[in-house]
Amino acid sequence: MQIGIVGLGRMGGNIARRLMRAGHRCVVFDTNDQPRQALAREGATAAGSLVEMVSALQERPRAVWLMLPAGQITEDAVISLGGLLGAGDIVIDGGNSFYKDDIRRAKKLASKHIQYIDCGTSGGIWGVERGYCMMIGGSKAAVDHLDPIFSALAPGLGDIPRTPGRGAHDSRAEHGYIHAGPCGAGHFVKMVHNGIEYGLMQAYAEGFDILRGKDSPDLPEDERYELNVADIAEVWRRGSVVSSWLLDLGAAALARDAQLAQFSGYVQDSGEGRWTVDAAMEEAVPVSVLSAALFARFRSREKHTFGEKLLSAMRSGFGGHVEGAEPIDPEPSAAE
Amino acid sequence: MQIGIVGLGRMGGNIARRLMRAGHRCVVFDTNDQPRQALAREGATAAGSLVEMVSALQERPRAVWLMLPAGQITEDAVISLGGLLGAGDIVIDGGNSFYKDDIRRAKKLASKHIQYIDCGTSGGIWGVERGYCMMIGGSKAAVDHLDPIFSALAPGLGDIPRTPGRGAHDSRAEHGYIHAGPCGAGHFVKMVHNGIEYGLMQAYAEGFDILRGKDSPDLPEDERYELNVADIAEVWRRGSVVSSWLLDLGAAALARDAQLAQFSGYVQDSGEGRWTVDAAMEEAVPVSVLSAALFARFRSREKHTFGEKLLSAMRSGFGGHVEGAEPIDPEPSAAE
Amino acid sequence: MQIGIVGLGRMGGNIARRLMRAGHRCVVFDTNDQPRQALAREGATAAGSLVEMVSALQERPRAVWLMLPAGQITEDAVISLGGLLGAGDIVIDGGNSFYKDDIRRAKKLASKHIQYIDCGTSGGIWGVERGYCMMIGGSKAAVDHLDPIFSALAPGLGDIPRTPGRGAHDSRAEHGYIHAGPCGAGHFVKMVHNGIEYGLMQAYAEGFDILRGKDSPDLPEDERYELNVADIAEVWRRGSVVSSWLLDLGAAALARDAQLAQFSGYVQDSGEGRWTVDAAMEEAVPVSVLSAALFARFRSREKHTFGEKLLSAMRSGFGGHVEGAEPIDPEPSAAE
Amino acid sequence: MQIGIVGLGRMGGNIARRLMRAGHRCVVFDTNDQPRQALAREGATAAGSLVEMVSALQERPRAVWLMLPAGQITEDAVISLGGLLGAGDIVIDGGNSFYKDDIRRAKKLASKHIQYIDCGTSGGIWGVERGYCMMIGGSKAAVDHLDPIFSALAPGLGDIPRTPGRGAHDSRAEHGYIHAGPCGAGHFVKMVHNGIEYGLMQAYAEGFDILRGKDSPDLPEDERYELNVADIAEVWRRGSVVSSWLLDLGAAALARDAQLAQFSGYVQDSGEGRWTVDAAMEEAVPVSVLSAALFARFRSREKHTFGEKLLSAMRSGFGGHVEGAEPIDPEPSAAE
Repeated sequence: MQIGIVGLGRMGGNIARRLMRAGHRCVVFDTNDQPRQALAREGATAAGSLVEMVSALQERPRAVWLMLPAGQITEDAVISLGGLLGAGDIVIDGGNSFYKDDIRRAKKLASKHIQYIDCGTSGGIWGVERGYCMMIGGSKAAVDHLDPIFSALAPGLGDIPRTPGRGAHDSRAEHGYIHAGPCGAGHFVKMVHNGIEYGLMQAYAEGFDILRGKDSPDLPEDERYELNVADIAEVWRRGSVVSSWLLDLGAAALARDAQLAQFSGYVQDSGEGRWTVDAAMEEAVPVSVLSAALFARFRSREKHTFGEKLLSAMRSGFGGHVEGAEPIDPEPSAAE
Repeated sequence: MQIGIVGLGRMGGNIARRLMRAGHRCVVFDTNDQPRQALAREGATAAGSLVEMVSALQERPRAVWLMLPAGQITEDAVISLGGLLGAGDIVIDGGNSFYKDDIRRAKKLASKHIQYIDCGTSGGIWGVERGYCMMIGGSKAAVDHLDPIFSALAPGLGDIPRTPGRGAHDSRAEHGYIHAGPCGAGHFVKMVHNGIEYGLMQAYAEGFDILRGKDSPDLPEDERYELNVADIAEVWRRGSVVSSWLLDLGAAALARDAQLAQFSGYVQDSGEGRWTVDAAMEEAVPVSVLSAALFARFRSREKHTFGEKLLSAMRSGFGGHVEGAEPIDPEPSAAE
Repeated sequence: MQIGIVGLGRMGGNIARRLMRAGHRCVVFDTNDQPRQALAREGATAAGSLVEMVSALQERPRAVWLMLPAGQITEDAVISLGGLLGAGDIVIDGGNSFYKDDIRRAKKLASKHIQYIDCGTSGGIWGVERGYCMMIGGSKAAVDHLDPIFSALAPGLGDIPRTPGRGAHDSRAEHGYIHAGPCGAGHFVKMVHNGIEYGLMQAYAEGFDILRGKDSPDLPEDERYELNVADIAEVWRRGSVVSSWLLDLGAAALARDAQLAQFSGYVQDSGEGRWTVDAAMEEAVPVSVLSAALFARFRSREKHTFGEKLLSAMRSGFGGHVEGAEPIDPEPSAAE
Repeated sequence: MQIGIVGLGRMGGNIARRLMRAGHRCVVFDTNDQPRQALAREGATAAGSLVEMVSALQERPRAVWLMLPAGQITEDAVISLGGLLGAGDIVIDGGNSFYKDDIRRAKKLASKHIQYIDCGTSGGIWGVERGYCMMIGGSKAAVDHLDPIFSALAPGLGDIPRTPGRGAHDSRAEHGYIHAGPCGAGHFVKMVHNGIEYGLMQAYAEGFDILRGKDSPDLPEDERYELNVADIAEVWRRGSVVSSWLLDLGAAALARDAQLAQFSGYVQDSGEGRWTVDAAMEEAVPVSVLSAALFARFRSREKHTFGEKLLSAMRSGFGGHVEGAEPIDPEPSAAE
């Protein structure tokens, strides 16, 4: 099958590679020349513009996979493709767009009878080898038409043990992709996936913080341990209840350097964590853990918040506590 | 009535002053000479040691009020007094001791027929004028005997509006002190009081953080406001649902300097916040807010946690995200 | 001054009353006849429709105060007034609208040179006596023009102690109203106010839960207390750090019935708590306490969440734990 | 090697089985006759009492593995064994004891030169096949002596991919067991493991709650999805960032019944979650996620909290909101 790929960063480039390995033909475009040339050398047709890419697509309906940062860049590409493609053609947004943007865009394209598919794609830089886990939204017809693409990108059954009792269920899930529902459903499921991911990561982060802090001189001497966090992460990979792919990654990082000295501790968040909390609020679902994980990232990026200064100001107000630059608080707490 | 006061810091010194104003006689002791001399000039009998203080107490039963930092210092003083006092005498711990320590200490003293009262004392540096709010644990007999002391320290009815329907209730509460229950109950109630205080303070802190951040250049221009946080704190004191004494203190601090520049944002916690969470866990009570308030203080004292570095390490592991010292994250979030 | 009031529920009716007491003339409208008649008997001009109300307004510029539920009802009223009022006239939204709706509506009305003021109004059912605390957004000219209205509604200095050092600040804040900023700023500040309110309330709720649970038979006998929560709430009103108006309300409720038997524990939230968390996410402000308070309300409205069933399902999966309808868990925790 | 096993529940019985399969000889005891007989049929020596078990142990030093519920039952067994064993013998507590109890017990036994090993054991009911992940505390000599036992119980390398760069590290971790440190360190690491486990589980629980609630009639029609949670859990097992063993278990449960109808949603917690939060507080580590996960379980076991009634009482106090048994709140939120 022939497909256009727009956006050849770490994700888009590898998606093209994995598709070509499976025998699909890719027409690739990126504003950056270097990855385009690299893929051309690997067998792709490199296009110099969206227009050129669309003309290079011979099969009907034409299909174009966008793998771009969410937001304005994806928006612009969808609008441009709306002008270049025609009835029956398919735009797939494989990035991390907000699902309400999908719904809005799909409506726009539908007026030209262009079909829109949103595909949440997980797998990171490992996907080219492991395959990509995909959550897809859109019409059944379009999703079915693209099945050769999705099944090539998906990990397949691999050596992951089968879940007992899956017999009666959609077998695509076992191969690593699902048709989640109508337009937006794919990115919605992917969004919640990332929200969960934040929570999982923060659970590990807090646990390892406790392990690391256990040698604190403030603790009684016989309750102080110098724990080997690299070995702990490794042993938990082996038959424990907390084993996971994220733990595998943590174990690898700790095996390289148990101090994690190359990392500052300044942690970004992408939009999905916030959108997940938003979605929860729309449904009145209590998401204490998912929100706490997000807020820990926010806090990691501040030296001190204004609110913390206000805490000190109030403490000073009622107790005469002096909290300046130096961590000294000699007053008995009775003063509160 | 005559009473010994041990510990003449901001709280203990003012308690002696308020008692003397009400006509009580105080024998005062502190390892520090300066506050002892100051109180002697104001009419107290200054004792050079616990032994001297106890001999200066003429009335029977003798009563000694401890106003010392919780922990070893209070423990030592209780043990010493256990050796100096006799049957029927009363030790009052007015500090912020852990209530389980009270229970343990009271049992020890009971073997010598010395009575032990735990008195949680709120009011801070303002108490000398406003009076102290007291939550008292111990035997009815001892609490009743000391009523002249408690009623002198308490704020009294003052001009605080009466709560409708208080008629049938213990009138001491309206005067600002209660006999909460048997030994430990006073400090337990005071502990929960402080736990609540942390939650209240953090609620204001977060709210003011949102107000302050509303001029962020990341926001759409017509949704950006430069808000006057000092005026906002002031107006909320005037008929709003969030008016409180803590807000009064915050408003005063913000009126002095809306930047709160003298405060670093490094915020201490005393033991009560942690003990409150402990008590909640013993009772299986969910305390999301009280614990979050405590953890915000913990976090305020760290530059970066190890856990945050682990987050970055995992992100790097699955997405190739590079998070070093510089806040740069150019990768599309699709990489997750 | 003459003003139209639309919406005569508990808030709107009392606002009209307080304005009339101050000598202002009110033209009132509500779809419900009863409150309209009641206010007419108290001196207001009752209008049978918006159109009638607008024609009854003689002074120029005309001013109409909306006191309606946020959302569609307010939206519709603004649109209607846009068709009835003219250049220079002023619409005041005194309800709890979302501030982004204010910005949008103000732009629409501006095309007709109608001015739009958003006024966050706190005070609840007590406002008619205590006055209303107001946070106002809009143009300086319109806010200044309406100053007689705002100052009549505000509590004024009253007997609330002055904040030290307020000299150089806007004196309106001390009287209970502020011009917070351009359009939307008033409701934004009110929104954060309500967000804080949720946090404060939840802090008290959790603290009282701990107090109530302290007589649990699961605790060691000498650590069990039967605490009088009504007396505790009362005593905390008297000189303690946690005194506040919310505590006054809690104390009154507990004085009536310490079991709070008339309340089911099913707790609503209005939009402001959610919007506050949204605003925090837009600014990347960590709001652990404000969000936890919101989520506690969400959870109070569920019997059991699906997520909780999933927890049981996983526990059963790894440990053979059986968690059915009955609270029985006889397995040693070692099974995890 | 010969070993005594005390406690033949799901965990203890299977540990004996796995050891016997590896050629070790087990002397087993349980107060319950049935599992003892079952293991005797499988080749174990069944003892009728601790005394009988100890006399049946021929090898020196004798080793006894306790697999009992944490708390008094384990305590009693340790005390009994202290009277039965002699210098050089080894007691292994394989349950989920609190690590401070280990430290205390080890000191007691040390006075008789009996060695004490604490072994946190993860793996649940699957361990007999998959092997057990073990975190061990105690003296190097005792841990080394028992290595044949630990290596037999551990999963071994299996087919789990090796972590890159593990070369220089203790190879036992890769086989599924570690010597974490001196006495208590094993259970401490296991405790944190369980604390993390709670956080991970709650992250999934909240995410699936959001997915399930997405068909709510309160949402706009084109933003409503009926998501297949069983398929979503399955697809996430396949190359996604959130794949984990807990997710495998969740997927299996959802494949059986996507409604999870057999589970009430009443969720127990064992001690480790609470102890983890305690340990974090001792180290001043902010653990927002781990505590939130614990509190969600607490809340799952209540119909309504007293605190929630207090929220309603306060709302009624300031806004006249009536929140009774029926979920009706017709008042405009402006009343706040």
